[in-house]
Amino acid sequence: MRLLITGGGGFLGQHVARALLVRGGFSREPGAPAELTELVLFDQAFAPEAVQDARVKYVHGDIRDRALLASVCAPGVDAVFHLASVVSAGAEADFDLGMGVNLDGMRALLDACRATGVAPRVVFTSSVAAFGGDLPEVVSDTTAATPQSSYGTQKVIGELLINDYTRKGYIDGRTLRLPTIVIRPGKPNRAASGFMSSILREPISGERAVCPVPAQARMWIASPQRAVQALVHAFRLPAHAWGWNRTLNAPGITVSVAQALDALARIAGAEAVKRVRFEPDAVIERIVLGWPARFVTDRADALGFARDADIDEIIRSHIGLP
Amino acid sequence: MRLLITGGGGFLGQHVARALLVRGGFSREPGAPAELTELVLFDQAFAPEAVQDARVKYVHGDIRDRALLASVCAPGVDAVFHLASVVSAGAEADFDLGMGVNLDGMRALLDACRATGVAPRVVFTSSVAAFGGDLPEVVSDTTAATPQSSYGTQKVIGELLINDYTRKGYIDGRTLRLPTIVIRPGKPNRAASGFMSSILREPISGERAVCPVPAQARMWIASPQRAVQALVHAFRLPAHAWGWNRTLNAPGITVSVAQALDALARIAGAEAVKRVRFEPDAVIERIVLGWPARFVTDRADALGFARDADIDEIIRSHIGLP
Repeated sequence: MRLLITGGGGFLGQHVARALLVRGGFSREPGAPAELTELVLFDQAFAPEAVQDARVKYVHGDIRDRALLASVCAPGVDAVFHLASVVSAGAEADFDLGMGVNLDGMRALLDACRATGVAPRVVFTSSVAAFGGDLPEVVSDTTAATPQSSYGTQKVIGELLINDYTRKGYIDGRTLRLPTIVIRPGKPNRAASGFMSSILREPISGERAVCPVPAQARMWIASPQRAVQALVHAFRLPAHAWGWNRTLNAPGITVSVAQALDALARIAGAEAVKRVRFEPDAVIERIVLGWPARFVTDRADALGFARDADIDEIIRSHIGLP
Repeated sequence: MRLLITGGGGFLGQHVARALLVRGGFSREPGAPAELTELVLFDQAFAPEAVQDARVKYVHGDIRDRALLASVCAPGVDAVFHLASVVSAGAEADFDLGMGVNLDGMRALLDACRATGVAPRVVFTSSVAAFGGDLPEVVSDTTAATPQSSYGTQKVIGELLINDYTRKGYIDGRTLRLPTIVIRPGKPNRAASGFMSSILREPISGERAVCPVPAQARMWIASPQRAVQALVHAFRLPAHAWGWNRTLNAPGITVSVAQALDALARIAGAEAVKRVRFEPDAVIERIVLGWPARFVTDRADALGFARDADIDEIIRSHIGLP
């Protein structure tokens, strides 16, 4: 079984790779082998500490490169995790880059999958940025997608393409609208939501952090562990469990900045919280506060997706506390 | 004021052209001239009986031709009606053609509009095909778009692009989800919904027609007159009336095949109805019966869009009866 991860050098891509190398692929038919023989990680760059395994093949390239994608997917990739993406603030700042990578790149990948003729399983990561504008207080499985950013627009277009390519039998697609992932490791990226990781991660390691939104601002979040678990679960579920609607709001928890900082104080001490400075940023605020912070995820719950217990658990897990 | 109509050789395009030549453009600022100086009709082909007027310029071309679109939109088109489209059954039969015209062609047009730097007003026609799957009994302004055809998928992607290009200030876009237009004149086209016109139009002119769906099948319809009126109204409304959500379900009426044939009998006689033969077509049935037939259109009603009185009025108007 051959698997491909686009954005395979990224944070999520590396975690999903590690999970798949342990858990293997899926059985196309009952009793068929699920052994993972090759895992292609596709990205523009890879860190030196990227996962090492005899089954892993690294491919450097641009997701808009149709010829390269076709060669990577041929002669018959069994499944793809499509994680490559220009993030929210990046797509807002550079419209053409966002459209090129998030829309043209996605179509290039879907067409390469279609050309294999084996209808690969495709797991795609969408986002809470699918929602915005005049939203109900609680977003449900039937709430209309009304993105208010180019990133969100491109993600919803991706959801629609996943559904249609699946309906046509070209792929077996599954889209998860992931909550904001907190606490992301490493350095801040251009995601508008990055501060929620930053205001916890930096103070824990003794550094200063800036919070660009008010303390009462709430977000819909999931830990890296839950997000990876959800992606692998989305991948392993049989097609019939998904039915015609291949887009799903993944479970998360609602946490305000104030609640996150209270938890930080409980776990890392009051001194840690003092390292966070509030400095309003109108652009970040407009993007992030436009996203919904409360969901009911009945469909995901019924399909066996799980959520974090609370922000304390997320922080403790990040530090490595039991 | 320069206006462009893509699909300008088509049925709707020609009607919109005639309406604009009479009514003129719009005032960018209060008191600014709204005089229509040039109306470019863009299409692959034009009928000999196409509208003649000194202000009309015919351009033959393909909507995927970016260079041609750029030259048509420069040096500053004031408004565009984007009506060019591969219809429903056509986009279902030829996936690449549908994606090329309905998605790539639309992006080519939007990018040409954006390049003018004057944020042209863009009116786009979407469709009830935006909806499908497990729908509520009555579709409202907040019902999620869940297309079940490639055509519907491409239309919803178009809606999303219209919203995002508008939000970015590249265009001043407005999308109308039109009901099925009944009675379309002329010959049947590849629209899956074409039979609803055919079973009225052909018997009225003494010809036979085939109905591919059961008599109890219902559709959400509008007359050509109402559709054109709605497009011109969408065009003339000021931007602030639209707000952030540039997608609107246009008003229509719910009519079953049986009701349409009863009205046909009342107006054209029982003999006319005998010219209709029922011959189930699974493909047409799956597409059309997946579309919603009942809507509440509160937002459109509040914005001053109007609907037909009933199917009798539509048939009488088609025949030229008062």
